[in-house]
Amino acid sequence: MKKFINQVDDFLAESLAGFAAAHSDLVVLNHEPVFVRRKTLKPGKVALISGGGSGHEPLHSGFVGYGMLDAACPGQVFTSPTPDQMMAAAKAVDTGAGALFIVKNYSGDVMNFEMASEMSDLPNARVLINDDVAVENSSYTTGRRGVAGAVIVEKLVGSLAESGADLEQCKAFGDRINKHTATMGVAFSSCTVPAAGTLTFKIGDDEIEVGVGIHGEPGRRRARFAAADAIAEELLRAIVADLKPKADAELLVLINGLGGTPLGELYLLFNSTRLWLQERALKIARVQVGSLTTSLEMAGASITLCVLDEEMTRHWDSPVHTPSLRWGL
Amino acid sequence: MKKFINQVDDFLAESLAGFAAAHSDLVVLNHEPVFVRRKTLKPGKVALISGGGSGHEPLHSGFVGYGMLDAACPGQVFTSPTPDQMMAAAKAVDTGAGALFIVKNYSGDVMNFEMASEMSDLPNARVLINDDVAVENSSYTTGRRGVAGAVIVEKLVGSLAESGADLEQCKAFGDRINKHTATMGVAFSSCTVPAAGTLTFKIGDDEIEVGVGIHGEPGRRRARFAAADAIAEELLRAIVADLKPKADAELLVLINGLGGTPLGELYLLFNSTRLWLQERALKIARVQVGSLTTSLEMAGASITLCVLDEEMTRHWDSPVHTPSLRWGL
Repeated sequence: MKKFINQVDDFLAESLAGFAAAHSDLVVLNHEPVFVRRKTLKPGKVALISGGGSGHEPLHSGFVGYGMLDAACPGQVFTSPTPDQMMAAAKAVDTGAGALFIVKNYSGDVMNFEMASEMSDLPNARVLINDDVAVENSSYTTGRRGVAGAVIVEKLVGSLAESGADLEQCKAFGDRINKHTATMGVAFSSCTVPAAGTLTFKIGDDEIEVGVGIHGEPGRRRARFAAADAIAEELLRAIVADLKPKADAELLVLINGLGGTPLGELYLLFNSTRLWLQERALKIARVQVGSLTTSLEMAGASITLCVLDEEMTRHWDSPVHTPSLRWGL
Repeated sequence: MKKFINQVDDFLAESLAGFAAAHSDLVVLNHEPVFVRRKTLKPGKVALISGGGSGHEPLHSGFVGYGMLDAACPGQVFTSPTPDQMMAAAKAVDTGAGALFIVKNYSGDVMNFEMASEMSDLPNARVLINDDVAVENSSYTTGRRGVAGAVIVEKLVGSLAESGADLEQCKAFGDRINKHTATMGVAFSSCTVPAAGTLTFKIGDDEIEVGVGIHGEPGRRRARFAAADAIAEELLRAIVADLKPKADAELLVLINGLGGTPLGELYLLFNSTRLWLQERALKIARVQVGSLTTSLEMAGASITLCVLDEEMTRHWDSPVHTPSLRWGL
């Protein structure tokens, strides 16, 4: 295992310390319990809190800031954060309008956010993200996994909250976005969790895992390596079969690298994606290409489609200022 | 070789097609010869043109836009672009104030940009980037290599050009920035050039290449794998020995991933870097962490320090709007 690391046990703390120091204009790192919070809070705004296991950076800490999250609770690598992190984070960023917990659908995350939600004194609600169409139920999940669609939910609900919407409206918007968002990924390589020190799964030199989860969970099938166009087609068929976009749908396309795939390949995958969509007369209205929801150094990528409506498009375009997503400011 | 690719010969064209489609608000892709140009040109502004082998994305195409480059000329992977690309790009983005070619110090790039410079009808000048302190002369270089410092030169000179400076001022500023910028990198893994299909170099499971070049060129030494703090110290000692920053120097720190290293590790490396600099009372004024000058999917990173003056700081902070660097707009 070759990583930028000193002691395995210190990986998360040192990485977060570097993150907080690099972005001290935007975020504050809290210790005991650990969470990242927005430096400048907006009174009367619904507080948006997400979190999950680390190793998916920039998700979620990299999206704390104006127009997205108010706090992120990082667990150890691929391990759920605890209810006390979530409750403390919510308390720290509450400014009177309640807290919305944005939760990716993994059993540990769901259980702990549910506990935090029940034990918290604050008015609160939860949005569950389950955009991964690859499989029903998985290694750590009942139902569908929550993956890169989280970025879209956090951006759009973050913008709505910033505009002054109340808790109920934010919750309803988050649920609506999730319903219109679908993702599927593919892995070319595994990854190594620092505490484990060995590869999460084995994969042959000519194999790919189609529908892989962001912790290396098995997908739909182990396939022979194929051309980018063929891979894109398999992912897109599954996504479109799930989303069933209407003929006049406007799509947000997110090409997400899993950590070890260079940008040049992600753009090539976007090219395969756009050509496939064009052939079916499906309109691409917005595009985001980058490694935003990763699996440590895993090589591979996911494709997310989100069917936009006018309100969603407006909130996608609105200004955002976080460490890893920024425009208009 | 597992990559998002259809045919090896089509890799660059398809990747650029995806890039241009994803960023059609900002850039236009020219064919025969190939270059990426800014969509909206500013009359009377010095035209900034860079380029080099592909495989280092987002460098340089990802930095075409407001406040940075006017055009980028991509060669095949790890292969210099040709003089006709450079001349055509300069002609396409010239608006009357001449062209500044920003050139990383590799023999092929230098020779071809020199030829373009001589053959071009436009008033033009060149800035040579040679920030890599690892070695004098290298596989493809006489003198020091040009690496991640290019991002800083392009950002700062881009801002100066935007503010209305003339060709001579832009050239002088670029030379000054280069002189105050130093970089050294380390590789944990090799990378595979699509056309070659095999690893560029071999490296053992417990080895690292200290001072690696961005094409996998040998560095100062092949070392045993070490802790992040020790790696950071070795790179920083070499950089500081070269830069010799004064006691009251204000530094811009760029932690640059080489393509296959996840963001969480880059932040940890920044943490090691900042602690080392703090111990020596060297002040960090600005920070940038990300994979901006890559070597395909190589695992590893480089550290760049740039000694800022007031003018340089102002041009770093100024608005920029490119596919891969954006703030203030």
